[in-house]
Amino acid sequence: MTPPALPDLGDLRAAAARLRGKAVATPLLSSPLIDSRLGARVLIKAECLQRTGSFKFRGAYNALAQLDAGKRRAGVVAYSSGNHAQGVAAAAALLGIPATIVMPADAPAIKVANTRFYGAAIVSYDRYRESRETIAERIAAERGAELLPPYDDARVIAGQGTIGLEIGEEAQRQGVAIDILIAPCSGGGLVTGCALGLSASPGKIAVYAAEPAGFDDLRRSLAAGKRVANDPAARSICDALLAPTPGELTFALAERLLAGSLAVSDDEVRRAMATAFSAYKIVLEPGGAAALAAVMSHKLAIAGKTIAIVASGGNVDPAAFAAALA
Amino acid sequence: MTPPALPDLGDLRAAAARLRGKAVATPLLSSPLIDSRLGARVLIKAECLQRTGSFKFRGAYNALAQLDAGKRRAGVVAYSSGNHAQGVAAAAALLGIPATIVMPADAPAIKVANTRFYGAAIVSYDRYRESRETIAERIAAERGAELLPPYDDARVIAGQGTIGLEIGEEAQRQGVAIDILIAPCSGGGLVTGCALGLSASPGKIAVYAAEPAGFDDLRRSLAAGKRVANDPAARSICDALLAPTPGELTFALAERLLAGSLAVSDDEVRRAMATAFSAYKIVLEPGGAAALAAVMSHKLAIAGKTIAIVASGGNVDPAAFAAALA
Repeated sequence: MTPPALPDLGDLRAAAARLRGKAVATPLLSSPLIDSRLGARVLIKAECLQRTGSFKFRGAYNALAQLDAGKRRAGVVAYSSGNHAQGVAAAAALLGIPATIVMPADAPAIKVANTRFYGAAIVSYDRYRESRETIAERIAAERGAELLPPYDDARVIAGQGTIGLEIGEEAQRQGVAIDILIAPCSGGGLVTGCALGLSASPGKIAVYAAEPAGFDDLRRSLAAGKRVANDPAARSICDALLAPTPGELTFALAERLLAGSLAVSDDEVRRAMATAFSAYKIVLEPGGAAALAAVMSHKLAIAGKTIAIVASGGNVDPAAFAAALA
Repeated sequence: MTPPALPDLGDLRAAAARLRGKAVATPLLSSPLIDSRLGARVLIKAECLQRTGSFKFRGAYNALAQLDAGKRRAGVVAYSSGNHAQGVAAAAALLGIPATIVMPADAPAIKVANTRFYGAAIVSYDRYRESRETIAERIAAERGAELLPPYDDARVIAGQGTIGLEIGEEAQRQGVAIDILIAPCSGGGLVTGCALGLSASPGKIAVYAAEPAGFDDLRRSLAAGKRVANDPAARSICDALLAPTPGELTFALAERLLAGSLAVSDDEVRRAMATAFSAYKIVLEPGGAAALAAVMSHKLAIAGKTIAIVASGGNVDPAAFAAALA
């Protein structure tokens, strides 16, 4: 069996062209106070300001914009803890494609409400007892609809990778040379896409994933040289980063392009959310703050370096956010 | 006595040139969810993402960049409830000018800490018993330093007005025609500067101030045709919007350029902070959310209109923010 083709820089540039005027070209924020405290220069790519409140819109739109007329009529089905759901729902609405989203019953209320706002139909399942893949595959097969996976898809990875392209372009405009990029990692579409995007930039940039402790399947997979899974008993506040194992495509890209992966605890994530609030004035959900958490808790030697951080999403319930500030 | 000269569009364009590469060109955010709920198109100019967390850096930098070498050596003195303090301190630090800030003893802790971070010396006073103007004037006279007022200064108004220029330029890029602009108002430098900046845009744009209830001195001054003061017993959670009366310059500009002023309650402001959190993923302080509060509580007929909102700052203590979300 031929392995599916990996996306390349040309796919990312085509994705950037499709997303122009559709996705927000999110700003790269900085804080002299945090830079001074860390002894490093930190640039925050604020994807919480993206359409639907997370980066997921990029990959979803890039994939759905490539469907033919027949597939568009049959619709799209996706499974997601929430951000991919909103991204698919919003992209489908813009393109006039009917969307059905399979969501865990315990997904944050704001993610469910927003997915519904974009006009998608929602099918609930039990995160710990049912297989979302099976449910989604059955619905897609019944309708002849497109099943859009959250990360293990070349079109999705290429869409997320436009973030890496934008970071590289903005750094060049500002005359800054990036040493390190860190992006949150669930299935790995974002971080591997960003690594691919930064391969267009001059210089050697070390790219790291940030994973929740207990969900550091990419870190352990890279060490083992093969895809390994997380303990099903593991729990984390990072509801967006709970994928059980790296994807096939994303793991192949990670082996080629990543310098490693850094695991962060719930407390480290909460502190990063509070810093994003006080220093950058942005709202980050737990998973969206994982990369900032890795820098702030010095999982890497960063002194004197310039570090780009992807702040990947801001869809968090008020009570959870207030708890992180307390 | 000749009245001091009012700033004009040329002063704003010169300010924009001085601020290029120094101030953040903040994004104009939108939320399909809020637009759908309000039946209007709302564009949020996110000045909470500005250097120092509020728009005040613009006016301060524009003024200090024009000081001659002697004045730069003697330093700058300012009085402020916090945001002007941080703006002056950061601008002075960039220009190598020593800064002394007269701050109320009850200013939010984050504003005091940040002002200190930028290297400014801080002098405390009692907001309800002492005159900050008198204290600042005495210090400035002793040192031959520049006293930089928070709003009643043509250079400061021109700096804040670059926000109006940027909104107009970005709207043109997006092919959007703005019908209404609303900006928070304390002494009036921001809203009158923005009105001046938007006079460069085609079409008729109605510009409104948003003031806290009990601090609606501009609204009452416009009605009276002369500058009137607030009741000293009034209180508001909008710590950035407590100026007792419009400035001389800002009132003259307001009479010429504004369509009116809208008063918002503390509860309306808290609801706007919660909406900025959930829909736009930005952190707004109470005063920073006053203009959004005016739109969300329908102080104006907005159906079918396009409304630009200045979200002027995000320097708020975690406890106050959590209370607004609750």
